[in-house]
Amino acid sequence: DQKKLRVLVDMDCVLADFETNFLKRYKEKYPDEPFIPLDKRKGFYLTTQYEKIGVHNDKIYSVINEEGFFLTLPPIAGGIEALKEMSGLPGVDVFLCTSPVINYQFCVKEKYDWVQKYLGKDWVEKLILTRDKTIIHGDLLIDDRPRIKGCEHEPLWRQVLFSACHNKTYKISNEIRLDSWDTNLWLPMILEAQKRKSSEVQ
Amino acid sequence: DQKKLRVLVDMDCVLADFETNFLKRYKEKYPDEPFIPLDKRKGFYLTTQYEKIGVHNDKIYSVINEEGFFLTLPPIAGGIEALKEMSGLPGVDVFLCTSPVINYQFCVKEKYDWVQKYLGKDWVEKLILTRDKTIIHGDLLIDDRPRIKGCEHEPLWRQVLFSACHNKTYKISNEIRLDSWDTNLWLPMILEAQKRKSSEVQ
Ligand SMILES: [Mg+2]
Ligand SMILES: [Mg+2]
Repeated sequence: DQKKLRVLVDMDCVLADFETNFLKRYKEKYPDEPFIPLDKRKGFYLTTQYEKIGVHNDKIYSVINEEGFFLTLPPIAGGIEALKEMSGLPGVDVFLCTSPVINYQFCVKEKYDWVQKYLGKDWVEKLILTRDKTIIHGDLLIDDRPRIKGCEHEPLWRQVLFSACHNKTYKISNEIRLDSWDTNLWLPMILEAQKRKSSEVQ
Repeated sequence: DQKKLRVLVDMDCVLADFETNFLKRYKEKYPDEPFIPLDKRKGFYLTTQYEKIGVHNDKIYSVINEEGFFLTLPPIAGGIEALKEMSGLPGVDVFLCTSPVINYQFCVKEKYDWVQKYLGKDWVEKLILTRDKTIIHGDLLIDDRPRIKGCEHEPLWRQVLFSACHNKTYKISNEIRLDSWDTNLWLPMILEAQKRKSSEVQ
């Protein structure tokens, strides 16, 4: 376990398609409001970008905070399969590491339901809910959010920036970019991280 | 932040009186079944001890998994006040670190509700739900459970064993024992830990 590579995997925009579900339900709820197509999304916060086109953040929250929003997120292509393969690798431990939204009423239970539905009961035990990811101790954090901040200024993980519509033009510095769950992309990245870790451990 | 002492505080049996609520609701639900008085509780798992007196673990789970069980846990004496004082200390960051039960259906949301009810909205953002506490990066973990295990064999925190009915005779080794939320007990312990940390940091 000690020498195992510990990988933390984010949910929204990495395993679960938050952006696609948001746009679909927003257009259904507000058919006469302006919207931002996925290929025009830029910047992590929907509210920030929608505010620029005159849409108040109340509307954004009304979509995200609705019962069923998180439960109905479609899986990101190849994510479930990749996760199962990754955790099957000898010497790799995988945890899910997700931040609930402020309005937790439906969000928290639905995240557990989603994990049970798509990954199964065993994976529910690997789920971590936290608003601060910097204090979770892993080797890698696969997450679509640029500039992850928290109480720990020097997180123990290295970030793998998972490509999402909103971060395609973000210029990485110390992060590794992972464009998709294509096995030819994630597997070498994991094996390389494992190699690096074993050369570090005394 | 870096030099701040990061304290992780467990919920059940430390801030929220799990054992008292269990016994109350178990006796209401199973008035003709044998029960274990709180002063006779020994060992972390209720199921293990109740099995010895002939009570099947299904009955234990039926109490814990019921809607409202976690929401109605009474606060442990002095805990809320201590937490608020502790997080007000300069140089101290406090997080809540709790493990949901396997049947998460009501447990997870009710834990968030409990925090909002007794501590307030700001504390909801400090709540971490995880089955594995060894991979949470803090300086201290205040928790009633002896022998906390997980994927990380050398957790970065030192445990403060919070006294509960079930662990009174447990013989500590590297842990510090905290008998209650009496300010005369927890405050010097925190200040001592802060002192030790500042002498460690380069
Ligand atoms: Mg995400
Ligand atoms: Mg506890």
